[in-house]
Amino acid sequence: MDFRSKKLINDPNDVVTEFIEGLVETYPGLQYLDGFPKVKVVLRADVSAATYDKVAVISGGGSGHEPAHAGFVGEGMLTAAICGDVFASPPVDSILAGIRAVSGSMGCLLIVKNYTGDRLNFGLAAEQAKSEGYAVEMVIVGDDCALPPPRGIAGRRGLAGTIFVHKVAGAAAAAGLSLAEVAVEAKRASEMVGTMGVALSVCTLPGQVTSDRLGPGKMELGLGIHGEPGAAVADFQPVDIVVSHVLKQILSTETNYVPITRGSRIVLMVNGLGATPLMELMIAAGKAVPVLQLEHGLAVDRVYTGSFMTSLDMAGFSITVMKADQKILNRLDAPTKAPNWPVGADGRPPAKIPVPLPLSHSTKNDESSSRPQQLSPQGYILEIAIEAAATAVINLKDSLNEWDSKVGDGDCGSTMFRGASAILEDMKKYYPLNDPAETMKEIGSSVRKVMGGTSGILYDIFFKAAYAQLKADCNPVIPLHWANALEAAIVAVSKYGGASAGYRTLLDALIPASSVLKEKLTGGEDPVNAFVVSAEAAVAGAESTKSMQAQAGRSSYVSADILASVPDPGAMAAASWYQAAALAVKDKYHAS
Amino acid sequence: MDFRSKKLINDPNDVVTEFIEGLVETYPGLQYLDGFPKVKVVLRADVSAATYDKVAVISGGGSGHEPAHAGFVGEGMLTAAICGDVFASPPVDSILAGIRAVSGSMGCLLIVKNYTGDRLNFGLAAEQAKSEGYAVEMVIVGDDCALPPPRGIAGRRGLAGTIFVHKVAGAAAAAGLSLAEVAVEAKRASEMVGTMGVALSVCTLPGQVTSDRLGPGKMELGLGIHGEPGAAVADFQPVDIVVSHVLKQILSTETNYVPITRGSRIVLMVNGLGATPLMELMIAAGKAVPVLQLEHGLAVDRVYTGSFMTSLDMAGFSITVMKADQKILNRLDAPTKAPNWPVGADGRPPAKIPVPLPLSHSTKNDESSSRPQQLSPQGYILEIAIEAAATAVINLKDSLNEWDSKVGDGDCGSTMFRGASAILEDMKKYYPLNDPAETMKEIGSSVRKVMGGTSGILYDIFFKAAYAQLKADCNPVIPLHWANALEAAIVAVSKYGGASAGYRTLLDALIPASSVLKEKLTGGEDPVNAFVVSAEAAVAGAESTKSMQAQAGRSSYVSADILASVPDPGAMAAASWYQAAALAVKDKYHAS
Repeated sequence: MDFRSKKLINDPNDVVTEFIEGLVETYPGLQYLDGFPKVKVVLRADVSAATYDKVAVISGGGSGHEPAHAGFVGEGMLTAAICGDVFASPPVDSILAGIRAVSGSMGCLLIVKNYTGDRLNFGLAAEQAKSEGYAVEMVIVGDDCALPPPRGIAGRRGLAGTIFVHKVAGAAAAAGLSLAEVAVEAKRASEMVGTMGVALSVCTLPGQVTSDRLGPGKMELGLGIHGEPGAAVADFQPVDIVVSHVLKQILSTETNYVPITRGSRIVLMVNGLGATPLMELMIAAGKAVPVLQLEHGLAVDRVYTGSFMTSLDMAGFSITVMKADQKILNRLDAPTKAPNWPVGADGRPPAKIPVPLPLSHSTKNDESSSRPQQLSPQGYILEIAIEAAATAVINLKDSLNEWDSKVGDGDCGSTMFRGASAILEDMKKYYPLNDPAETMKEIGSSVRKVMGGTSGILYDIFFKAAYAQLKADCNPVIPLHWANALEAAIVAVSKYGGASAGYRTLLDALIPASSVLKEKLTGGEDPVNAFVVSAEAAVAGAESTKSMQAQAGRSSYVSADILASVPDPGAMAAASWYQAAALAVKDKYHAS
Repeated sequence: MDFRSKKLINDPNDVVTEFIEGLVETYPGLQYLDGFPKVKVVLRADVSAATYDKVAVISGGGSGHEPAHAGFVGEGMLTAAICGDVFASPPVDSILAGIRAVSGSMGCLLIVKNYTGDRLNFGLAAEQAKSEGYAVEMVIVGDDCALPPPRGIAGRRGLAGTIFVHKVAGAAAAAGLSLAEVAVEAKRASEMVGTMGVALSVCTLPGQVTSDRLGPGKMELGLGIHGEPGAAVADFQPVDIVVSHVLKQILSTETNYVPITRGSRIVLMVNGLGATPLMELMIAAGKAVPVLQLEHGLAVDRVYTGSFMTSLDMAGFSITVMKADQKILNRLDAPTKAPNWPVGADGRPPAKIPVPLPLSHSTKNDESSSRPQQLSPQGYILEIAIEAAATAVINLKDSLNEWDSKVGDGDCGSTMFRGASAILEDMKKYYPLNDPAETMKEIGSSVRKVMGGTSGILYDIFFKAAYAQLKADCNPVIPLHWANALEAAIVAVSKYGGASAGYRTLLDALIPASSVLKEKLTGGEDPVNAFVVSAEAAVAGAESTKSMQAQAGRSSYVSADILASVPDPGAMAAASWYQAAALAVKDKYHAS
């Protein structure tokens, strides 16, 4: 197994039948013919040859190009898909079985990619079906633009452009057109489309060894979809350059493969080759559109980006450009139930202008707040409380760092010091202290600005939630509002931070404080006393973290012995500022 | 560049903004906020906060998971997606910009995958938005089932199951429900869903070196979507075993992560991680369904297979199982314009039985044909002609091989010999010689049975087309009908084989013969003479191939000098059998 490429499969010989089984489990509208392993035909579950009154559109070929072709079976696109083994044309009998299963009185159109095996097998099946009385037409698609015009029989390969031919034919058939008319539309579409591929890695067949044909700094241009070598190997380039090159080649007036000239309307497909993330496909699409518009002077009417015609696990993409008039656009836009036809690509406007960034709802935010000329009595007390709280944290810096060095990063004190210092500084400059709610909001911004990381954002959440609650409770702010604000702030920190009581965090100081404060205030206790008593609960709670298991961060890797010797520094910091504020308020009132 | 992993990108720092540009070029219904590179928000082009009268559903997170989340923006699913840098949570200001851009009077629901950065940034944005007067709710999704129940804050990771929560919430919002109701449905969905991933390779960040953490024979189970190591590394296994293991883990009654018990109805998602071909995803889906049904006793009501929540270019998949009742199914089935929500997965029947192989239309095919007891005069002449033609080819075996050894595989004579011998043998046994059309059909089958390869199938096409033309011209067969049949046969061989006159093939004998025959017959020439004269044209045509360039096969690599010394063996064989038949018919008529 070690020398095979890794694939999430079972027996490499069963990949196609097992793919089909998964496909029909996924899509109720699809069904398969009971002929495994030889006959591998996917068809619309709602179509029976005996009663079908539209032209059946049938395609197929070797497997390994999923979702092509079976993923394009559905009303409005293919009626059946004939699956060969990986990269091998399906046998005549399978094709014939598919024709018999879905072709009604209107007959069937076979859409075949230009490979000798497919032409011959589908061709013989077509002749045999005709000899059985079926009306059959066949359109061969060769959209490859990588090589100069070939002299020989082989001609241009069929690539992802075939998907457009499927869609045009499928929509024409769904519209009730005759076989001849559907064939004409398919033929016309096939003559309007050109494709070229780029690969960063070659594909690996199930059960086979991965090829290292492409080195680390190389890419292959103009490749096929069967792992056959590309037209050229080039040094790896940024995708912008790759896209420009590929488009130039497709639209070359020398080869003149597609009848597209300056001013033409076109549709674009950026097709992943199997292992290319959607991000990269979208980046290519985002580049291809302006190149087509500006460098080639084309109107890009539709863009289809995704993995439609792949090459097993090949990394890379192909670009397809198709000339489009309103008739073709209508066929492409027509509804289909085919699972893998992209939805939402219709109705492309000529230009897109990004939506302007919305402004904040609250006009307050726009004008910067400022410290009032004159503090109200409440504002004065708020200032004293904030000053005391911040100073307590500043004084605790070394202890916090020491505790944290035993159980965490060792920077808790320094981080909290930065936050507290910023609060003291900003308060002097612009805290609107007469408005407690707005002041809480500013504190949040101050600390996030300087603290950074998880603690900064958590304290910002804390103060923003307190602000919102104070706002909700309306002016004037009474002690119970502060209790409500503390409660809301705790809920927000717990919700967004994920911690609960007993997790050895700041909540282990604040939750007991909040409970006691609420209880005392609603029980009629003097507010100042209520704050002081709840502060004692905060300190006790912080001390109790010594006996707690850590649940997050570095602390969770520290042994219980060490943890038992130190309290959680975050909880100690919280208890400290809470108590300092409460005592300062008490001093103020006792002094007055 | 050589030591970086190859990606089709430009500057690694620009991948997200360039992805978004491509995305909105592809989908006219999507738009982005004008705040690149800092603010990367994709939103519905048709929604403006000022007028939006539904609950806005917003999600997002780090990029690198495309199509998540921007590909799920659209009516009926997300209203906006906030994109961070690759694997990095988006900043608060971006989230806030997204909330402001799409949240109307009904407010918004934030759906957040359970990662600390996302919780905190979305959490702070939510609190700030509330402080600006918006109604905001947040639901956190942690659907990972890979690890035993965690004790700590981090909790279970958010994985692909989040997509189901997006869909349920989006459909509830589209139905006009209130914010509280939408949040309740999203929360309920998040509690019903479990996911586990398997990887064959780790992902590579843009501009970074590819990790070789996983060796060639190893796979990783229970991985995250950011390249973080999985819960376990295991020896590589067939996908059937992998799928069984993953499902057992998700549905484990020990962890009890999802409330799913025997008899439950569920929906299944098989999600590619970025570089996994659809074929492999479908194979996994095809296995997962019977395992869920038979081993776990569950009713599988929907299957979603594709790449929805990826991890850059990681090879592997995740499986998500969600408990579903009719209400959830209705939400999942509700229409949406989100480009990457899979279509066609609704209405899954309890069981699927493959469609029986259709029988041939023509009853004739079913009974084997047989040689008539008594030959008609026409049948007698036909036998003489066939016998002469086949004998001529047999006699030419060595010459054909010799010519072919100079310009091709050297086996043309042997191959033609096999076909001619089979004709002689089968003719005695069962050719219905009194019916010229049916006899042509049998000749085709005889040669394809023994000749194989391109020449066998081409000659089968030749005779099947002749058969169909003779049938179309109706009985009795007159000389002109033979001319028509030859013409139709040539058209078919040219069409399916790709060769024209002058390509140095059998057509260079048959095309002149056909022209002359038609001309003579319509000019009133004696039919026998017409055949003989046209046979001379065939021989002349075959000889003229010496001066032709080869257009296909090995001959196209042979120098003109050598080619000029030998005729095309295929053309010589055709001229030979044609002339032999004509002369035998002439002898017969002259003799009688």
